[in-house]
Amino acid sequence: MANMNFIDKLSSASKRNDSLLCVGLDPDMGKIPLHAAKDPIFEFNKRIVDATSDLVIAYKPNLAFYEALGLDGMRSLMKTVEYISDVPVIADAKRGDVDHATKAYAKAVFDVFRFDAVTVNPYMGIDSVKPFLDYVEKGVFILCRTSNPGAKNFQDLYCKKFLYEIVAERVVDWNVHKNCGVVAGATYPEELKKIRAIVGEDVPILIPGIGAQSGDLEKAVKFGTNSSGNMAIISSSRSIIYAGKGKDFDKKARDVALSLRDKINQFRHEI
Amino acid sequence: MANMNFIDKLSSASKRNDSLLCVGLDPDMGKIPLHAAKDPIFEFNKRIVDATSDLVIAYKPNLAFYEALGLDGMRSLMKTVEYISDVPVIADAKRGDVDHATKAYAKAVFDVFRFDAVTVNPYMGIDSVKPFLDYVEKGVFILCRTSNPGAKNFQDLYCKKFLYEIVAERVVDWNVHKNCGVVAGATYPEELKKIRAIVGEDVPILIPGIGAQSGDLEKAVKFGTNSSGNMAIISSSRSIIYAGKGKDFDKKARDVALSLRDKINQFRHEI
Repeated sequence: MANMNFIDKLSSASKRNDSLLCVGLDPDMGKIPLHAAKDPIFEFNKRIVDATSDLVIAYKPNLAFYEALGLDGMRSLMKTVEYISDVPVIADAKRGDVDHATKAYAKAVFDVFRFDAVTVNPYMGIDSVKPFLDYVEKGVFILCRTSNPGAKNFQDLYCKKFLYEIVAERVVDWNVHKNCGVVAGATYPEELKKIRAIVGEDVPILIPGIGAQSGDLEKAVKFGTNSSGNMAIISSSRSIIYAGKGKDFDKKARDVALSLRDKINQFRHEI
Repeated sequence: MANMNFIDKLSSASKRNDSLLCVGLDPDMGKIPLHAAKDPIFEFNKRIVDATSDLVIAYKPNLAFYEALGLDGMRSLMKTVEYISDVPVIADAKRGDVDHATKAYAKAVFDVFRFDAVTVNPYMGIDSVKPFLDYVEKGVFILCRTSNPGAKNFQDLYCKKFLYEIVAERVVDWNVHKNCGVVAGATYPEELKKIRAIVGEDVPILIPGIGAQSGDLEKAVKFGTNSSGNMAIISSSRSIIYAGKGKDFDKKARDVALSLRDKINQFRHEI
């Protein structure tokens, strides 16, 4: 699928697996039951992927957890991205910098690590985002209304509109290559609804916050999808990958992923 | 100096070297005249550091340029940080994520890579910053008014105050451990002046934008320093480290660094 662009790859995985579920691959050495393995992070991810790749729309490794493990962690990440086929992989990187530094980040994420998409922080404005957008085959998810409590500090600044609404409007302007997405947390369903209204039918929304962060799944599906129940990527990390603590952790992960995918689809089909 | 906190280490280097100059260590393989070396990035940085370490207040590698070189780049970065002694090293990383992911980024930057300080993007709010602040011995520079053109897109939103002013005010609130700094670009001197007024005397301001980005040096010094001409970190990357293209690139870098340090001091002493 090397020649498919991100949106097509995403749509294809969604259709094939009848799924909007995205699994976050966020390694935590304290929770991984594979310490004897030569590369426990990669082995863990591999087994999670093997157990769930027919159930998901995408995978989303958060780079923080790999960087915290130093060079070994980054190597495991690279192997993980290489291993996953047929399902798009989103770098949850939240990058953004001045133009020439963003070019370097885009090179790192897309050329070196070979991700299909990336999450980007918009605070520095268009030139901190554009070098990512220039990879027209790749997806770029711009943080709009994030899922965490601190999201309120700045994203809720109200000045005729909320800052997160202004960001969503800019994303529509910036979407020249039709490769923009936005991030909007399930923990704030009303905001998610407004964001879907602003970005329209064709912009994918990456929705974290339904698992450990306790966001409202039904509203995430109903407000986050477009009118045909698509273009939402509903992401859960810890509640899936750490569902089991024993040798059968991959089976446990699959059980939770399957049940979550089906629950999402149930709400999706009620639309 | 392992037991010194960031602000003390910064003040000590500033006093010893009579300097506010920070050199950005941003490798670009196309510009580095050391391709025969086993680890050209590290060798380049080492020679720049050897040639300038008595002239600077800090070094600031931007992580983007190392990540773009993959695992080898990250390894060179780690060696570079390890090599630099007596002068604080700021990770220009512009990170920020939900609480548990930010904890992992803080671990990466401070425990694994052993930086003295980091730049942080505030868009996600307090819980995306706090895990960095909890390293009370380390410095945390929060993006306030960045130096790039796109800074205007969101940072200039005006709602009784500008967003960047609101960010600066929050930094004052968040500075419980006295380890906060802010980033404010030399390309926007009036904004820099307002930011210094908001954050007061003791918060260091990291000021990029004077070299290739053509910011106003005199105003950067006069508006960025506190009333005693301190607590500003004036950063230049490309104009110093790529001053020369030949074998004597380190000497050329030193010449530019020396002249820039002295020019900064001249404006500083006019205050």
